Amino acid sequence: MKPLTKDTNILIVGLGVIGGSYARALSRQGYTVRCITKEQKDIDYALSLGMIKEGSTEVKAEFVQKADLIIFALYPHIFVEWIKEHQHLFAAGTLITDVTGVKSRIVYEVQSILRPDVEFIAAHPMAGRESSGVEYSDDRVFIGANYIITPTERNTPEAIEACKTLGEVLGFARITELSPEEHDRMIAFLSQLTHCIAVTLMTCNEAPMMEQYTGDSFRDLTRIAKINDAMWSELFLLNREALLEQMDAFANEFDRFRTLLKIGDSDGMRETMRRATARRILFDKPQKSN
Amino acid sequence: MKPLTKDTNILIVGLGVIGGSYARALSRQGYTVRCITKEQKDIDYALSLGMIKEGSTEVKAEFVQKADLIIFALYPHIFVEWIKEHQHLFAAGTLITDVTGVKSRIVYEVQSILRPDVEFIAAHPMAGRESSGVEYSDDRVFIGANYIITPTERNTPEAIEACKTLGEVLGFARITELSPEEHDRMIAFLSQLTHCIAVTLMTCNEAPMMEQYTGDSFRDLTRIAKINDAMWSELFLLNREALLEQMDAFANEFDRFRTLLKIGDSDGMRETMRRATARRILFDKPQKSN
Repeated sequence: MKPLTKDTNILIVGLGVIGGSYARALSRQGYTVRCITKEQKDIDYALSLGMIKEGSTEVKAEFVQKADLIIFALYPHIFVEWIKEHQHLFAAGTLITDVTGVKSRIVYEVQSILRPDVEFIAAHPMAGRESSGVEYSDDRVFIGANYIITPTERNTPEAIEACKTLGEVLGFARITELSPEEHDRMIAFLSQLTHCIAVTLMTCNEAPMMEQYTGDSFRDLTRIAKINDAMWSELFLLNREALLEQMDAFANEFDRFRTLLKIGDSDGMRETMRRATARRILFDKPQKSN
Repeated sequence: MKPLTKDTNILIVGLGVIGGSYARALSRQGYTVRCITKEQKDIDYALSLGMIKEGSTEVKAEFVQKADLIIFALYPHIFVEWIKEHQHLFAAGTLITDVTGVKSRIVYEVQSILRPDVEFIAAHPMAGRESSGVEYSDDRVFIGANYIITPTERNTPEAIEACKTLGEVLGFARITELSPEEHDRMIAFLSQLTHCIAVTLMTCNEAPMMEQYTGDSFRDLTRIAKINDAMWSELFLLNREALLEQMDAFANEFDRFRTLLKIGDSDGMRETMRRATARRILFDKPQKSN
C-alpha cells in the first residue's frame, strides 16, 4: 500500500451527495478523480464543474485498474455485491475505503470475502445532508466534522495512515479510530436514535394546523425527519441490535420522566432537568471549529 | 377598556428574559414603560439601555394605578399570588395580560378571582430563549414568531382587540386566537413534549466521550435540554393531563416503530419515514417571515 500523495489515482464508486462531496474536495486539491456511477447526467454534472476527470456508467476495467484508492459511496448492500462481482478487476495493492454509516455488519463481511492482495479500511465521514443526489454535494459540510476510521486486526498501519491522510485532505476537524462495534453503539445513540425520534414526532400526532403554531424547537427536533427511507431503513436493519438497545434505554428513561410527571414529583423532574442541562453543555459546538 | 395607543401607560411585572424583551420593543416604539421586578440590578440595567422609564423593586401603588395595561411576566404561581395580594391597587378599567406558557389552569383561576372592573386577557408569545435573565432579553425573537391570544367568554371584544394590537406592536408575525384548552393541547405537543424528549436524550445514555463524536442532528435535538428546571417543571405540572396524553401518543408510536425494526419490517419503516418526510415539509419555516 502506497501512501496517499498527489499522484494517487482515486476512483469514486457512487456519485451521490457524499461521493460528490469527496470528488469536489479531492479534485480541488489536485488529485486525479474518476468515477463510476449509475446515471450519465450525474457524470455530466460533475464534469461540468471539474469535480472529476472522467466518469463511466459501466464498471470500466481500466478505471478500476488505474486506481490506487477506491472510495465506495454506495448503499451498504450494493457495496457488498459490487465487491463480490467486480473484485477480480482490482490491481494488486489497491486500497479501498467506504463511507458507510454502519460498520460491524459491513467491515468484517467485506474483509472476509476480499482478495488478500487488496486492503479494505473502513471509514465514516460524519457529515450529511437531508437531500440526496450529486447536485446537493458540498465539501464544506466536512469542515468542523468528525471522520471516524474503524480498523480491524486485518488492517495494516500503512492503510490506517493513508485513511487518516484522506480524512485530513477532505477537511475534517477530528479524525479518530473506533472499533466497528464501538462505532455502531455510538452511531446508534447519536444518529440513528435521533432519526427514530424525529420520525416518531412527525407521525405520533397528525392533527391538522399544528404547523401554524410551531416554533423553532419543534422544527429543530424534526429537521432530520425528512429522511431517505431506502437508505435509513437499510442502515437501521444493519445495526438492529445496537439501535434497539438505545431505543429501549430512551423509552425507559422517557417512561421514568413520565412517571415523575404523573405522580407530581417536581423535585425528581427538576433533578433530571438539571442533569440534562449540565450534560448538554458538553455537547456545545467548539467555537474554533464552528 | 381603552384601545392601545401611544398614550397607553404600560407596567411590566417581572423583568426577565421575556418581560425585558417586551420592554425593549415597547419603549423603542414610544410607549411609556414602567416595571416592577425583584432585583434592583435588573432595573438599573433596563434604565441604562432605555428599556423602561422607571422601575421599582416594591409593588409601588403609584405605578400600578398609573398603568392602563399591565403585563405579567412571572412564574405562573407567582402571577396568581400577585393578583390575590395586590389587585386592590388596580385602577378601574385596567387591562391585564400575561405571557404564561400554559393557559387552562391559569386563565380561569385569575378571571374568577379578579375584580369585576378589571379585565384579564391571556396571551402566549411563542418565542423564547434558553437563557433566563433580562440581560438575555431581545425583542428580535418576536420577528416571525406566533402570538396566541386565549380569550374566554368573560373577555370583551375591546380587550381582545387591544391584545392583538399589542402582539402587532411587539412584532409578531402571526396573531391567532385559541381557546385555553386548544392552546394547552397544542403546546403540550409542539413545545412541552419536545422538551421532555430533549431532556430524556441527555439523561438516557450518560456514556463518556459521546460529545467527541456528535454531529449537528444530535445537537439540534438537544438544544432545548438546557432548561430552566423551576419554570418548566411548573409548566409541565400545570398542563399535566394534556402533556401525559402527548407523551403517551409519542411513546406508543415510538414503540410501534421499534417493533417494525425488531421484526425487520423494512416496508413498514419506509412507509412511516415517507409519511414523516411528507408531513415535515408542512413545518418548514415560511421564507417570507424568516
